[in-house]
Amino acid sequence: MSAYEQLMAFSHTTEALGQVAGRLGWDQEAIMPEGAAPQRAEEMAAMESVLHARRTDPKVGNWLAEIDPAQLDEVGRAQLRHIEKSFERTSKVPADLAAEIAKVTSRAQGIWAQARSDEDVAAFLPTLKEVVSLKRQEGQALAAGGDVYDAMIDDYEPEMTAAEIAAMFDAMRPRLVALRAAVLAAEAPAKLSGTFASDKQMALTAKLAKSFGYDFDHGRIDCVTHPFCSGSGLDVRITTRTSESDPFNCFYSTIHEVGHAAYEQGIHRDYLLTPIGHGVSMGVHESQSRIYENQLGRGRAYTGWLYEQMKAEFGDFGIADAEAFYGTVNRVNDGYIRTEADEVQYNLHIMLRFDLERALMQGDLAVDDLEAAWNDRFAADFGYAVDKPSNGVLQDVHWSVGLFGYFPTYSLGNVYAGCLNEALRRAVPDLDAQLAQGDTSAATGWLRENLQQHGGLREPAATIAHATGAAPSGEPLLAYLEEKFGDIYKL
Amino acid sequence: MSAYEQLMAFSHTTEALGQVAGRLGWDQEAIMPEGAAPQRAEEMAAMESVLHARRTDPKVGNWLAEIDPAQLDEVGRAQLRHIEKSFERTSKVPADLAAEIAKVTSRAQGIWAQARSDEDVAAFLPTLKEVVSLKRQEGQALAAGGDVYDAMIDDYEPEMTAAEIAAMFDAMRPRLVALRAAVLAAEAPAKLSGTFASDKQMALTAKLAKSFGYDFDHGRIDCVTHPFCSGSGLDVRITTRTSESDPFNCFYSTIHEVGHAAYEQGIHRDYLLTPIGHGVSMGVHESQSRIYENQLGRGRAYTGWLYEQMKAEFGDFGIADAEAFYGTVNRVNDGYIRTEADEVQYNLHIMLRFDLERALMQGDLAVDDLEAAWNDRFAADFGYAVDKPSNGVLQDVHWSVGLFGYFPTYSLGNVYAGCLNEALRRAVPDLDAQLAQGDTSAATGWLRENLQQHGGLREPAATIAHATGAAPSGEPLLAYLEEKFGDIYKL
Repeated sequence: MSAYEQLMAFSHTTEALGQVAGRLGWDQEAIMPEGAAPQRAEEMAAMESVLHARRTDPKVGNWLAEIDPAQLDEVGRAQLRHIEKSFERTSKVPADLAAEIAKVTSRAQGIWAQARSDEDVAAFLPTLKEVVSLKRQEGQALAAGGDVYDAMIDDYEPEMTAAEIAAMFDAMRPRLVALRAAVLAAEAPAKLSGTFASDKQMALTAKLAKSFGYDFDHGRIDCVTHPFCSGSGLDVRITTRTSESDPFNCFYSTIHEVGHAAYEQGIHRDYLLTPIGHGVSMGVHESQSRIYENQLGRGRAYTGWLYEQMKAEFGDFGIADAEAFYGTVNRVNDGYIRTEADEVQYNLHIMLRFDLERALMQGDLAVDDLEAAWNDRFAADFGYAVDKPSNGVLQDVHWSVGLFGYFPTYSLGNVYAGCLNEALRRAVPDLDAQLAQGDTSAATGWLRENLQQHGGLREPAATIAHATGAAPSGEPLLAYLEEKFGDIYKL
Repeated sequence: MSAYEQLMAFSHTTEALGQVAGRLGWDQEAIMPEGAAPQRAEEMAAMESVLHARRTDPKVGNWLAEIDPAQLDEVGRAQLRHIEKSFERTSKVPADLAAEIAKVTSRAQGIWAQARSDEDVAAFLPTLKEVVSLKRQEGQALAAGGDVYDAMIDDYEPEMTAAEIAAMFDAMRPRLVALRAAVLAAEAPAKLSGTFASDKQMALTAKLAKSFGYDFDHGRIDCVTHPFCSGSGLDVRITTRTSESDPFNCFYSTIHEVGHAAYEQGIHRDYLLTPIGHGVSMGVHESQSRIYENQLGRGRAYTGWLYEQMKAEFGDFGIADAEAFYGTVNRVNDGYIRTEADEVQYNLHIMLRFDLERALMQGDLAVDDLEAAWNDRFAADFGYAVDKPSNGVLQDVHWSVGLFGYFPTYSLGNVYAGCLNEALRRAVPDLDAQLAQGDTSAATGWLRENLQQHGGLREPAATIAHATGAAPSGEPLLAYLEEKFGDIYKL
């Protein structure tokens, strides 16, 4: 066997073990008996130690040194790029620093949850300082003289820089602030009210998943507290949740996770259990969940079909017609919480976090000043004051577990979804006629053909450019939002 | 760290990975989406390769050589014994032979299933010859000059020999044949008839599991085709099945698996994720499932309580009273199939297989003569001829997957259960009064205290002797069966 073949055989086993570890995480969140938690922690640690040993195995370094990328085809070079990156990254971070980060962030999550419940920022700050300090050390090790925050972003969105993101976000922010203000000053569509039985929600949510092409022969849906998607290739499981007063939460959580799952289920089978057999980045992943959820699922055409499905399942639920229902689905509400935010406000939440965590990582903002900075920025963009820490700086788990550089990928996903939607509409001009029948196959087929099947073959920006014919830009998303909400709110 | 501490730390990770591999198997049987099978095979193979590498790691041999067992306490010596045995066993079998066995048995299972479905013994024989030949080679490697079949039994029932088992079985067989003949000549209790809704069966089966102390905080029940129990320690999951015409199948499958689970859930928490943190052998494991299912669950006292539960769940189902119900639960039926056999006939099935596979392994029976030998023996013990291969030599999967030495542990389990039941009744004289209320806690408490909590601390026979005060013997089981069925059938 050539060095490349040996490396790929070794990588195949590592990928399979990675799937096992992922499914263990799914089991833990979805169906594990509660008392199993301490043993599960040991099992996860054992899997992690095996995976870490394989990712840093000196044999990998030797094979990498031996292989001449020029002798490989495009797929081979892409595989090599992913393996090399993972190997170098893991080798750059000292083992004792990695262990210390794992230990501190594991503890920090509980401290954060307690502080949030107690509305006590001060109780969280000493721990957050530790996390920030350790993550900055890690960033310095990874950056090797370059920008610390860029090195962190690279983990989630390869080859993207903070400066590029900042340029994009800074251009979008004033228009989003203006759109938000105009929408909230206008007359709002009716709110949904009433009670919607959980079992009926689950029956309909399975129908919606199927309408978006979710492949139940290679996946399943379970109920959890915080919905997610897990796995690659032939076993991609999604989760959802139900609230009897808010069926949209169930339906759009499902459609969102189906978007993630469609990406993983749609990758070319030749790439199964290889480094390019996964979604290429958090941002591109989020572009799939977001375009399924928003541009397709919350559009006038699909909500027209959904309106009929809901009437069939729940009877009359007090919304007069499909047009009114379209407004109800897309109603913009005041609020503090990112995860509850609508299409108009969501990105403002992200931009706030991006600017703050960038300043933290670059040493321009002290942890002690974080709450004040958050509250000032929130007031500036949203027009009212944060009323309590759980609605402000303590609302998200991310920083407690050391996820710096992750937040911007949510908005990158929205930006990419805007670009893809524009290209898709161009390619399939009569798309809405199909969506109005609950038929998403032209849309999901286009996305699979042009994006999903390629997995990690190209870097994120190139992945979007390959599908759309143009470099990512915030402009299509802004145009889409201004048109959609201008129409609904008669601006 | 001492060599022993290093060995135990290494073993801890191996044990945790073993639990992960086991849960992957549970997932596959219980809830995996069907199309995931090819990927799952890769994942299982990856886990196996990791586990095999750890079990044969030269570091283990070095630590073993360095440790002086005399310096260890009883627990330490038991841990060492298990690790040493596994290491030596894996090291004795040449890697290419092990790989060949894995390959051939994996293929053989499909060929057996097809042959059984086609009622075509000849189609299975060439493959069975391969399996027998490879397993004999493996047995020779393990036996190192000793008895080949003994070496195989040792995998499932350490320190038990074929000669000991044969002496026990040969003494039991005539009395079982006689009991069977007498029972089938007498008037039989009423058969259960009617339809019993699956969801009501599942509701009641959960109640039965709880009545036997199954800990749902460290386990769960799911439905499968072939019920089993999976996992050790804090995550021990059981499975059951429903048939609307046969609720006893569901209820007694559940109680049987609860017996297995009680053993694993009941082992001392100090032994968690160590080599002695599992049931010590197949036979001792089966003793727990069998005493729960039969001596306790099918006794007059507990079935009296179960009768009331079934009436509450299903209404009148045509059995007049608790006494008649006790007969119905224990009705002995003619039949060919081991897995459907009752307490009277089950062990005759096992003895048949034991004698045949022992002769195969010792070279005293040719694979070509196996079917004739089976049919002759069946006619002798059961009094009528096998009508088709799927009711005869092709009925069980075991031989196709190379499980030789496994069958006798089913009857050893029954024998051990007989011994334990005798000791338990002595220790808790008013047990039936409690069982009649559906309260099994005195019985399950005694088993946990005297057997389950010790896990792999002692070898199987010593485990039984520790609990009962005497070496295992077939006599208590025979006395129990003759009394119970003599009473029900008025012999």
